[in-house]
Amino acid sequence: MTVPSQAEAALIETLQERLGKAHVLTAASDMESALVELRGLYRGTALAVVRPGDTQQVAFTIAQCAKRGVPVVAQGGNTGLVGGGVPFGGVVLSLARLNRVREIDPLNGTMTVEAGCVLQSVQAAAAAAGYLFPLSLASEGSCTIGGNLATNAGGTAVLRYGNTRELTLGLEVVLSDGRIWNGLKGLRKDNTGYDLRDLFIGSEGTLGIITAAVLKLSPAPKTRVTAFVGCASPGHALALFNNLRDPAGDQLTAFEYMPDFGLEIVLKHRPASVRPLAERYHSYALVELTSPRVDADLRRTLEEILASALEDGTIADAVMGDSEAQSLALWGLRENLSEVQRLEGGSIKHDVAVPVSRVAEFIEIATKACEDAMPGVRVCAFGHFGDGNIHFNLSQPLGMDKDAYLSEWARFNVIVHDIVNGMNGSIAAEHGIGLIKRDELARYKDPVALDLMRAIKRTLDPGNLLNPGKVVEIGADSPATFPVETRVTKTGLA
Amino acid sequence: MTVPSQAEAALIETLQERLGKAHVLTAASDMESALVELRGLYRGTALAVVRPGDTQQVAFTIAQCAKRGVPVVAQGGNTGLVGGGVPFGGVVLSLARLNRVREIDPLNGTMTVEAGCVLQSVQAAAAAAGYLFPLSLASEGSCTIGGNLATNAGGTAVLRYGNTRELTLGLEVVLSDGRIWNGLKGLRKDNTGYDLRDLFIGSEGTLGIITAAVLKLSPAPKTRVTAFVGCASPGHALALFNNLRDPAGDQLTAFEYMPDFGLEIVLKHRPASVRPLAERYHSYALVELTSPRVDADLRRTLEEILASALEDGTIADAVMGDSEAQSLALWGLRENLSEVQRLEGGSIKHDVAVPVSRVAEFIEIATKACEDAMPGVRVCAFGHFGDGNIHFNLSQPLGMDKDAYLSEWARFNVIVHDIVNGMNGSIAAEHGIGLIKRDELARYKDPVALDLMRAIKRTLDPGNLLNPGKVVEIGADSPATFPVETRVTKTGLA
Repeated sequence: MTVPSQAEAALIETLQERLGKAHVLTAASDMESALVELRGLYRGTALAVVRPGDTQQVAFTIAQCAKRGVPVVAQGGNTGLVGGGVPFGGVVLSLARLNRVREIDPLNGTMTVEAGCVLQSVQAAAAAAGYLFPLSLASEGSCTIGGNLATNAGGTAVLRYGNTRELTLGLEVVLSDGRIWNGLKGLRKDNTGYDLRDLFIGSEGTLGIITAAVLKLSPAPKTRVTAFVGCASPGHALALFNNLRDPAGDQLTAFEYMPDFGLEIVLKHRPASVRPLAERYHSYALVELTSPRVDADLRRTLEEILASALEDGTIADAVMGDSEAQSLALWGLRENLSEVQRLEGGSIKHDVAVPVSRVAEFIEIATKACEDAMPGVRVCAFGHFGDGNIHFNLSQPLGMDKDAYLSEWARFNVIVHDIVNGMNGSIAAEHGIGLIKRDELARYKDPVALDLMRAIKRTLDPGNLLNPGKVVEIGADSPATFPVETRVTKTGLA
Repeated sequence: MTVPSQAEAALIETLQERLGKAHVLTAASDMESALVELRGLYRGTALAVVRPGDTQQVAFTIAQCAKRGVPVVAQGGNTGLVGGGVPFGGVVLSLARLNRVREIDPLNGTMTVEAGCVLQSVQAAAAAAGYLFPLSLASEGSCTIGGNLATNAGGTAVLRYGNTRELTLGLEVVLSDGRIWNGLKGLRKDNTGYDLRDLFIGSEGTLGIITAAVLKLSPAPKTRVTAFVGCASPGHALALFNNLRDPAGDQLTAFEYMPDFGLEIVLKHRPASVRPLAERYHSYALVELTSPRVDADLRRTLEEILASALEDGTIADAVMGDSEAQSLALWGLRENLSEVQRLEGGSIKHDVAVPVSRVAEFIEIATKACEDAMPGVRVCAFGHFGDGNIHFNLSQPLGMDKDAYLSEWARFNVIVHDIVNGMNGSIAAEHGIGLIKRDELARYKDPVALDLMRAIKRTLDPGNLLNPGKVVEIGADSPATFPVETRVTKTGLA
């Protein structure tokens, strides 16, 4: 551990006085979990992990850091997948103690929550009030709503309800100089000037620290029908999606995709799971329709669409979840896929989006390109098909050395991202940029957009103290730059 | 007409060379319609009205203006209600010739349109492709989508589909230095850096000129049921809204409100309209449910909710539109209200929003405060109740001098906006700030937010050339400031 400078020591003392020593952690063992990225991709360093108890203390902490030029990296559940929460010196600001649900206003259909609330607890508070907070993703038991806001998290309900951005009405944000912007309004319409809210959402802690938010609640669905469908290609899945969207409208709440390889590794590594269809097919779709009403007709609608799709050859087979337990089992096949990939060796991952109209074409072209580049590579392209968002992951060829395989990461990035870019897509659909994609972004993003981003960063954080070096580099003269290639372990990538 | 300076003359010559003389208008008669605000509130001045034919020509125009320090005010249909499009010197940039639908991608559920497309033509193009583009407002026959984007327009379908912001996926924008940002992506998920799109949407032409957009399309509703409801107070209307929202979910597509006074003046001035209910009531709600499916059950749902509300005294009477013609007639009662108010003399107007949970309370408190301030004033509080957005308009007392009444505008602003502000509401819900509310905004907006807005304006438009003096003043040293009180005629306010 490096010895803190005099200014840094003074900062720690000042923070300990205001927040209490228990909330300004400096011992290596106390800081450990905040320094390491979830998958072990990066190990950072920090002067202290600071745990303010309310917004005023966050503002005090930021103001003190700003005064001394000390960088601040905000952390919620530290579950990010792009290295966005890794500190490289300075202070880790944990929002964990800002975990109150400040208000639920059922008649307004809103709840006001603090940044450190775990997503699952936000969902639970909404449910207790008779509502649905629809944001749902794999890490919901440990990620925080502040992190969801900072990364504009996506997940499995975007098709129907939108990303975190679309679920948010107001924000409270601490700025880089320690001032507090109170934008906690729960309004459906508010055209009083520039949209500051959406500037902070998705900025990954580089423009300000979100301390609280007003979230939109939705009526809880009263009817839910689920089906697992087998078909001959991603193109057939897309045709089914198109057949569903018109009659089902936004009652179509999920259209997830997985390939044969994906289903087989779930069945292999999760012995409790049951093969849903009698035969194997090239592609599978998990379809869900919900209605806010008790709606017996919804099941018939889905049955009719599937029957018609079977008849005209769009799909090859389908099974419907006849009970809540069966629906959950079908969802389990999809949800377990993220986890079991690591049991198949090294996995090179991409989180991309293309227009929905091109998602089948993308899967086919990118699959062929990767298989051509490395015979034996096993493509696991799955995810939020109805959003055009595919987790285009590549499991290593059987028998290949894992480290040798993972050393090809950059080569596959170019292959996959070039195809995405050629389709006017996104190289970071729902996980963000952080550190891992920062230099990729500089390669693919419209240069005018990059320039605007840098100008905004310089304006809102002139000292480059908020999560410096993440998302976008603001120039060679920035006070804190560091290379993307600080990964501690290649094997950690798997 | 003032004689242009040498630099200004050179600018006009340069623009005429590139765009053609027919598209750089300088004669007073040619410019007239671009100088006057819709309601006659303001009369501006301009060097020229420039009509570029494509994005490159817009960029050229802006670059040439920037080079010479000449301000630029963009105009679409010039239908704004807050003086946002009024030029005070410089160039009026008309987007009218950028009126192509560039692409419709049915499978992606998107269309790419240029800024000068009239809203109605965007709706028609979507309908021709079998989709709904849900943005709908009174001026849809003449306003342009560029203006809708610049003001984040609202309208009657926000409850179900959101504001213009929520209907937009991508933008093409010309910046203040003439560079083009190509953000025309049609993606549901794209977390590649800061949300530039939403910074330009709603910025009223002060940060950049929107030249094209990718818009989201929705499935066209297959079933629609409408009801007109009478009840004893706004509080009863709110209770009905609450009873509807849970069972109907987002199938509740409209919940509009009008008071007894509003219905009576529509019936008085529109002799063809028919009284919908046998008796008169304090408050009325226009309710609409739609479904993307052919859904016979939808009508029964609404009938049951209304029957139950009648039984427990929430509402006093209701009629359902039994045909498309009847539904249109019910909508007509609401839609004619905007227009007939001017036939009742001077009208002092407010476009405000509060949390939906407080909308009834707001109407009651603000009504009493205004009636106390001026006995005989006739409150016409109506609008998008389900969004918490009320057009809180005040018709003059019978027999009072109109000008004397309108001279009280500022006093009523303070009364109404103070109440709105006390409820954490918005003084500009859907019409924007422009010029007419700029100084009101400075009074009510969080000072930190104002400061952020000014910093962003200075960063994106350092020369203060894009619609200077609108939305927010950036300081006494700004190259173009002018007072709000430039209204040409008080009577024009009615």
